[in-house]
Amino acid sequence: MKIALVQLNYHIGNFNTNTERIISHINKAKTEGAHLVVFSELAVCGYYPHDLLERKEFIDNTLKAVDEIVNATSDIAVVIGAPTVNTSNRGKRLYNSALFINNQKIEKTIHKTLLPTYDIFDEYRHFEPNKSFDVVEFMGKKLAVTVCEDLWDKQPTNNSFAQSELYITSPLEELNKLNPDLIINIAASPFSFDQEGTRKSTLVRNAVEYSLPLVYVNQVGAQTEVIFDGGSMFINHAGEVMHEMAYFKEDFRIVDIDVSQEQETQASQSAIAKINDALVLGIKDYFNKMGFKTATLGLSGGIDSAVVAVLAVQALGSENVHVLLMPSKYSSGHSITDAVELAENLGIKYETVDIQSIVDSFEHALSPLFEGLEADVTEENIQARARGVLVMALSNKFGNILLNTSNKSECAVGYGTLYGDMNGGLSVLGDVYKTDVFNLARYMNREKEVIPENIIVKPPSAELRPDQKDSDSLPDYDILDDVLYRYIEQNQSTEEIISAGFNAETVRRAAHMVNINEYKRFQTPPILRISSKAFGFGRKMPLVAKYNG
Amino acid sequence: MKIALVQLNYHIGNFNTNTERIISHINKAKTEGAHLVVFSELAVCGYYPHDLLERKEFIDNTLKAVDEIVNATSDIAVVIGAPTVNTSNRGKRLYNSALFINNQKIEKTIHKTLLPTYDIFDEYRHFEPNKSFDVVEFMGKKLAVTVCEDLWDKQPTNNSFAQSELYITSPLEELNKLNPDLIINIAASPFSFDQEGTRKSTLVRNAVEYSLPLVYVNQVGAQTEVIFDGGSMFINHAGEVMHEMAYFKEDFRIVDIDVSQEQETQASQSAIAKINDALVLGIKDYFNKMGFKTATLGLSGGIDSAVVAVLAVQALGSENVHVLLMPSKYSSGHSITDAVELAENLGIKYETVDIQSIVDSFEHALSPLFEGLEADVTEENIQARARGVLVMALSNKFGNILLNTSNKSECAVGYGTLYGDMNGGLSVLGDVYKTDVFNLARYMNREKEVIPENIIVKPPSAELRPDQKDSDSLPDYDILDDVLYRYIEQNQSTEEIISAGFNAETVRRAAHMVNINEYKRFQTPPILRISSKAFGFGRKMPLVAKYNG
Repeated sequence: MKIALVQLNYHIGNFNTNTERIISHINKAKTEGAHLVVFSELAVCGYYPHDLLERKEFIDNTLKAVDEIVNATSDIAVVIGAPTVNTSNRGKRLYNSALFINNQKIEKTIHKTLLPTYDIFDEYRHFEPNKSFDVVEFMGKKLAVTVCEDLWDKQPTNNSFAQSELYITSPLEELNKLNPDLIINIAASPFSFDQEGTRKSTLVRNAVEYSLPLVYVNQVGAQTEVIFDGGSMFINHAGEVMHEMAYFKEDFRIVDIDVSQEQETQASQSAIAKINDALVLGIKDYFNKMGFKTATLGLSGGIDSAVVAVLAVQALGSENVHVLLMPSKYSSGHSITDAVELAENLGIKYETVDIQSIVDSFEHALSPLFEGLEADVTEENIQARARGVLVMALSNKFGNILLNTSNKSECAVGYGTLYGDMNGGLSVLGDVYKTDVFNLARYMNREKEVIPENIIVKPPSAELRPDQKDSDSLPDYDILDDVLYRYIEQNQSTEEIISAGFNAETVRRAAHMVNINEYKRFQTPPILRISSKAFGFGRKMPLVAKYNG
Repeated sequence: MKIALVQLNYHIGNFNTNTERIISHINKAKTEGAHLVVFSELAVCGYYPHDLLERKEFIDNTLKAVDEIVNATSDIAVVIGAPTVNTSNRGKRLYNSALFINNQKIEKTIHKTLLPTYDIFDEYRHFEPNKSFDVVEFMGKKLAVTVCEDLWDKQPTNNSFAQSELYITSPLEELNKLNPDLIINIAASPFSFDQEGTRKSTLVRNAVEYSLPLVYVNQVGAQTEVIFDGGSMFINHAGEVMHEMAYFKEDFRIVDIDVSQEQETQASQSAIAKINDALVLGIKDYFNKMGFKTATLGLSGGIDSAVVAVLAVQALGSENVHVLLMPSKYSSGHSITDAVELAENLGIKYETVDIQSIVDSFEHALSPLFEGLEADVTEENIQARARGVLVMALSNKFGNILLNTSNKSECAVGYGTLYGDMNGGLSVLGDVYKTDVFNLARYMNREKEVIPENIIVKPPSAELRPDQKDSDSLPDYDILDDVLYRYIEQNQSTEEIISAGFNAETVRRAAHMVNINEYKRFQTPPILRISSKAFGFGRKMPLVAKYNG
């Protein structure tokens, strides 16, 4: 049996475009001799539509698109993901389903059993879980069709206090009782650099455990924050990855599951190269799918804005990036020359607006109210906010979308000014720790010096008061980032981190800063997610709470 | 049997204070002769802790607090809500439980069956649902102990396209097979003005259907956005509400379920009075629980900031509200005199900062970049953002928390400036449509004119260009709000709203404005929730999506 694996980048709710592309790939598969074409989870509407699933017109449009796809399947079979309506009179109104369509007829609808509802996943909000199991018969073979999480029954819980298996049922254990010949899994599985390998080993484990070949089709492309990396694959019954498809781009492959072929895998990339590619895809899809073309950002001469500028150029082209240099009296001379050198290396348009007269006008206007009071963080924030107003003015006037340049270490400890440098339509580095921002810069300079070396080697500073350094108020980033990773990604308590050998005061202070800054993160732009725990809707903490450790 | 109903305001994660108050109320109940004391859902930690439930130290602290409470129950029984650990090796690691404690021993732990996962509720994210049922035996009676949603099995789904019952199991149907004598329901049920009556009728329906008396204990108080209104009650087996407890404040009541007593209910309030009280409680709890004391806001002379100022004074006292008047060259003279009159009526501190020189300094700095270009929304936004910087400076310098004054109609259509008038620590009116802002103003003036009449009667304007009126760019608020309510709260499609008799162009334009402004709402402060569908985490729409109707 020849199966086409179709790995596409869907636009949520854009039914015309999605349907047209799905049908053209069905036709391509047919032309190339495939018997069955497999698309990813919720391919018809795009994953994940969130509360659009509660709207009638969204479901009506989905059903209409499914009809068109069904009509396009003469002499070929298709497995494709779509929400379907629960027609019983009890339970959530939708299922997250895989449709088995054969020769213009939906022959079977398989509902997802395990509904991920943790981190960025929210499926039980909208879907009723499946409770009965059946295989699909096609060309004399029995197909065990499953939807994404259905193969992840053995994953550990994400709590830090009692590791165990997350689910009480195993869909494949049930399906295996019906003696299937092949597992098909349609997925929408996002990228995270620190869970590299987990996905592949989970799929391999399933193939080996049931001694069955496995066809896995993932979606690719970014949906606001969440970046899907593709990497669809065919694994044989011995657990060997026979065909591995592209990462971070669309791909199409026909595999003959009955004929043994040469193994074809993807060249392995370093974690930092993957993060780079993920962020570029994230920016590109945000702009393309929103219909935006040009970006802006403030280039400070520091490393964060430098790395964002390079990523923006990779994603949008140098002709579409227009930056502002906004020095104040605290900006060092080299900050400006470094920023200019970077802009010229990248060939992007840059302009300089001195903020001093604006800052002076604020301070003058406020002087009757602040008479006799010392300068403090208020005056530092006025500088950051004056810059925020300027880049937003550029954005408003020319339609350039502001890219936010805050990194994850800063977001974590609240080192940034709300309505100032925390502004932006999209946060590019909000899930990248400062130490990895340095790694990205080095990676970007691997062939030639794009980012001036001085930007990489000078001590990080916000330049909001004379001779300010990040290290005045924060621990060194290599220590801080390690503490933050344990506290945020691994949910370790301060006591656990301290017993791992970190300085107690540093750990407690870092945790305290994370906790008291939930309110700031509440108002930050969407953050491109590259880790297993990004700030944003995958990490929901109460604002009004007392935090302990 | 004498049962004490204890309706408290919990602070999430503040175990010392919560435990101390729980124990003091157990003692009070004992002193007053109660046999059983009933607290609300997740009372030990406060509802809802979100992802703090994934942290070990949070669960450890909960278990420690439960131990202390257990020790305090000599010669009395207690029903109280707490998360408990799932000790099997499969499934989510926690249950949302009701503990039945009797004479220093946990005699039974009852887990919640129906886990609300819709709107603001997210319980399946953290909890495994119960699957087995048992009653609690106490003083010769069988108690059917349930947790909140367990009585809501018959509620309709919240989708707009296929109304039906949300759940496939009925906990009380199961418990009724064991012949209980009394239903106890511990709850955390939030206020929403447009579902007034639904809660009471659901409880009454359960009492009548099973012909059983019902003790219902709700929590009270605001947890950031979500406002719990209390209103705990005792309903007899005939469905009569015999005792109804206070709304929007703590309360304590002992009922003898075996002796018929005089009916005691709460005086009914108008919807607008309830909204007023809910918002005041929302502000008060945000400040108290965060440890803040003083508030600031920009007083424009318009109705939104006027109503917020009045609510702030009700919540915090006039001595703790410090406002800024920030006129520009487009501000009308009466805006300033109206604002001054309001501030003086309220007895709050006010200061005036003219923004014109600041706006000029921005425009001067940007003039080389904008040369030859027409003035547009960019320049309007600069004014709003200059004001945003000024109130934030006041906030930074004096520790006053900025209250946001945007109303729901504006939030819906994106009529507001990000990083300008959309700034704030808490949005007071973000769930109140403009028409209800007027109703609130009238309500506030019911005894004497607190808000100058001119503020209420003049046409709404942002005053960002000469003679600007909201009605230049928006439909009249009474029509707009009706359309928005159907689109947002009721999930109606544009076609449905048009067929209800609204102008097609108005409806499509309003829906379009709602959809293209998801990105702005993504970055707004937490919004006090008073409706059944507030903007914020109870309404999750994808940013990058194509919207249709």
